[in-house]
Amino acid sequence: MLREHRVRWPEVVAVVDRHGPGSLTYPQLADRVARLATWLARNGAATGHRVLWLGQNSAAILELMLACAQTGAALCIANWRQSPEEMLFTLDDLDPRLIVWQHGAIGATVAEVRSRRNNSAETWLRYDADTGVSEYEAAIAGQSPHDDLPGASPGQPLLLLYTAGFSGKPAASILTQRGIIAQSFCYAAQREFDSSLRYLNATPLFHVATLLDMCAAFLIGGRNIFVPQASAGEMCELIDREGITATFVLPPTIEQMLVENADGRFNLKSLRSLPYNDAWNAMVTLDDSPWGKRPYGYGQTETMGYTTFNAIGAPGIGAMGRPSPIIRMAFVDDAGEPVPDGQVGEIAVRGASVSPGYWNRPEMDAARYTDGWRRTGDLGRREADGSISFIGSKGRLIKSAAENIYPAEVESCIRQLDGVADVAVIGTPDPQWTQSVKALVVLKPESAVTADQVIRHCRARIASYKKPRTVEFLAALPRVNGAMDYARLDADHGGGGYPGTG
Amino acid sequence: MLREHRVRWPEVVAVVDRHGPGSLTYPQLADRVARLATWLARNGAATGHRVLWLGQNSAAILELMLACAQTGAALCIANWRQSPEEMLFTLDDLDPRLIVWQHGAIGATVAEVRSRRNNSAETWLRYDADTGVSEYEAAIAGQSPHDDLPGASPGQPLLLLYTAGFSGKPAASILTQRGIIAQSFCYAAQREFDSSLRYLNATPLFHVATLLDMCAAFLIGGRNIFVPQASAGEMCELIDREGITATFVLPPTIEQMLVENADGRFNLKSLRSLPYNDAWNAMVTLDDSPWGKRPYGYGQTETMGYTTFNAIGAPGIGAMGRPSPIIRMAFVDDAGEPVPDGQVGEIAVRGASVSPGYWNRPEMDAARYTDGWRRTGDLGRREADGSISFIGSKGRLIKSAAENIYPAEVESCIRQLDGVADVAVIGTPDPQWTQSVKALVVLKPESAVTADQVIRHCRARIASYKKPRTVEFLAALPRVNGAMDYARLDADHGGGGYPGTG
Repeated sequence: MLREHRVRWPEVVAVVDRHGPGSLTYPQLADRVARLATWLARNGAATGHRVLWLGQNSAAILELMLACAQTGAALCIANWRQSPEEMLFTLDDLDPRLIVWQHGAIGATVAEVRSRRNNSAETWLRYDADTGVSEYEAAIAGQSPHDDLPGASPGQPLLLLYTAGFSGKPAASILTQRGIIAQSFCYAAQREFDSSLRYLNATPLFHVATLLDMCAAFLIGGRNIFVPQASAGEMCELIDREGITATFVLPPTIEQMLVENADGRFNLKSLRSLPYNDAWNAMVTLDDSPWGKRPYGYGQTETMGYTTFNAIGAPGIGAMGRPSPIIRMAFVDDAGEPVPDGQVGEIAVRGASVSPGYWNRPEMDAARYTDGWRRTGDLGRREADGSISFIGSKGRLIKSAAENIYPAEVESCIRQLDGVADVAVIGTPDPQWTQSVKALVVLKPESAVTADQVIRHCRARIASYKKPRTVEFLAALPRVNGAMDYARLDADHGGGGYPGTG
Repeated sequence: MLREHRVRWPEVVAVVDRHGPGSLTYPQLADRVARLATWLARNGAATGHRVLWLGQNSAAILELMLACAQTGAALCIANWRQSPEEMLFTLDDLDPRLIVWQHGAIGATVAEVRSRRNNSAETWLRYDADTGVSEYEAAIAGQSPHDDLPGASPGQPLLLLYTAGFSGKPAASILTQRGIIAQSFCYAAQREFDSSLRYLNATPLFHVATLLDMCAAFLIGGRNIFVPQASAGEMCELIDREGITATFVLPPTIEQMLVENADGRFNLKSLRSLPYNDAWNAMVTLDDSPWGKRPYGYGQTETMGYTTFNAIGAPGIGAMGRPSPIIRMAFVDDAGEPVPDGQVGEIAVRGASVSPGYWNRPEMDAARYTDGWRRTGDLGRREADGSISFIGSKGRLIKSAAENIYPAEVESCIRQLDGVADVAVIGTPDPQWTQSVKALVVLKPESAVTADQVIRHCRARIASYKKPRTVEFLAALPRVNGAMDYARLDADHGGGGYPGTG
């Protein structure tokens, strides 16, 4: 792709990073990447090996990814906010030949990690310099571009992204060049990205959402602008100065940008954005692409983001739209057999954008992958009109008699009842049935919903054995970082006896 | 894809063909195709075999293509206006196991062909019936859908389309399932096709342009409406009644539709169309997609249509836009080596949408394909800004001393001179240099361009040996079916001595 871009867009600026190489046209980027690839190939980062980026957002991430595509190595973009212990785990797990790191943001952590680690097979290349030319820039400058590198085959790993994993231990999901390209084009079409795109990479590139934006912007021949992190002032200034047309921005940053630009000294009209509040909507241009009108969908890191798009098709019963055209989607029971439409099952996906597996986790691959299908660990439902509902994580399971009950499905059902503000479902030990279902419900002010109404609502909509046996009304439910604190709910409200917990 | 569409779009009408099966939802279409595939598999049309459609536009073309994807056979959609001799050539060349034919349009031709042909290995299945159930419908009704068909692998031939070929004898270009899907998505994005699309198949489906539209409409989950041929009255009526949103319509048909709908009794506002004249523009909705604003590009049947799109990137020097994101493009000399940017070379392409070769033409494959690259036989140039110019067919060649001169390149140069209305370049025999270049020029009214000006214009822009030695001014140039009649120009103006003509 890069070699094509070089001849297609000889005059187009590909990259702007004033904390890095500045402004690069596609031919300039191609030249730097070819030199970097030569350096990688000569320093052990060839086919089958790993390169690790430890730093903030930077043009180096794009350069390293493109260089790895030329040598056949895989690039891992890790969370730079890791503690020394987490970083040591990542290094042990990944076993990279090369680590490119940024002193400015994480110098102290890296110093501690390197003092506790002694691996002569790995090279540490510092990205930033106190003064003069950095090790990274010297590596590029010292090579001439070679044309005879093997290149990655489309199915080889190109990116590795760590996810929480379902065993509690992070695992790196493998993304292939083929998957990244297919997903980028599919996504770019929904967003009506074209070569006039100027994308501001502000949210972390170790998250798949921003990474997908960067890849799509590159693949359609647009421009990627990088800032180390989402800083409202710098973002306002860059949107104005660089004519940024798209970015990914979260509500707290929007609020800061509204304060920063309260006097309107920055012109943010070039930015096509999702609506937020009146002040924001007046400051930017509302995105009228299919995506802009109906954004998001269901996806995972392991699927390079979205597997469904709200923008596909007319609005339907399910809130997650329709499956992406490049994947197939099924809903399966615990035996892996498809459940009938309209029933909740585990979401399974296969197709170009789906990761082929995890780095160095044969047991997770065996648990998650069958005949090319990935079991997502999430529950969903195909509605009568073909649209998709996301129910929740399959994670917690209640056992009643011989039946498996997913609390997420019961919660999703209760949440639809008028007057319910919040809900959590737990299992309580039951000598006869192993567990029984208990719903903890927060009502809206002035709601008069009764326990009996909750139970009858469920019986009318889901299998009878899934309905709560008891309902308790609470003033609020405890959450940690936005996630329901089920451990505390179990402790406070008699939960326990879950399958597999002895 | 079809199995996915069945569950994705359970309520969406996939096909409307009132000369065929009427209106079919995606599940109904999937059911018919599964039965048809079973019939094909039981009647010899399995992997590696060919099915031939001889008829006008019909939902059967889509059904047969989808059924072939399930059995692994390839579908050839042939020009139904062929003479008996041409049809006999097609049958001998293609050696199909099954011919599905339409009595209404070509009954007499088929009768003659079958009387002159006796091949017991082939089955003729009539599509239309005088009364009652046709052979085609009986074949579908008599089978139950099977789930255990092998399916075509993505790289197998799925479609065969005859092109004139460069040897004078038609040859069928092979299109793979992978190529069709990749090209359809790429094209659908340029046109902003989505599942609300209602596409009217009116121009012949044996041409790649309409076929690409049909495939794209199917793949994004839209609706395909079929008419046997482009009839202005039926098209107006269907656009109004079915809410058609897109079609491919040529100027003569537009003129007929303007007459047909002069009283405005049909509402054609649902149709997104390229602009034509004021009356048409007022009758339809102008297409404001990237494609609608800057349509077309350069392509061939052998590339499933466009390899460049005008809609990609800002307007550039070249009139053909930029290469499609799913292909690579190069410009090569006769030895196959790339020429520098800005110089004319033969356009070479490789990538997902490029045909892997011709059916049963090893000598053409050897001449046209090297290391996955297809030499198109057309001349083009990559301009300084990366945009693409199409110069013309490489076909004719003038030999001067040891140099090859492509008349198309010289004509393209002269055409840019102010005051020139039309131009043809021929070679005249030259005892010393083999041939010399002669330009036949038609001037615009009141133009005073001289022969010397033409020659100096060329010398300033192309290699000196390519400039015309003589220039003759004519009132008009002879054309046959829109194509320059070079044979007559040679005869009338002293042309001859071309390489390879003895």
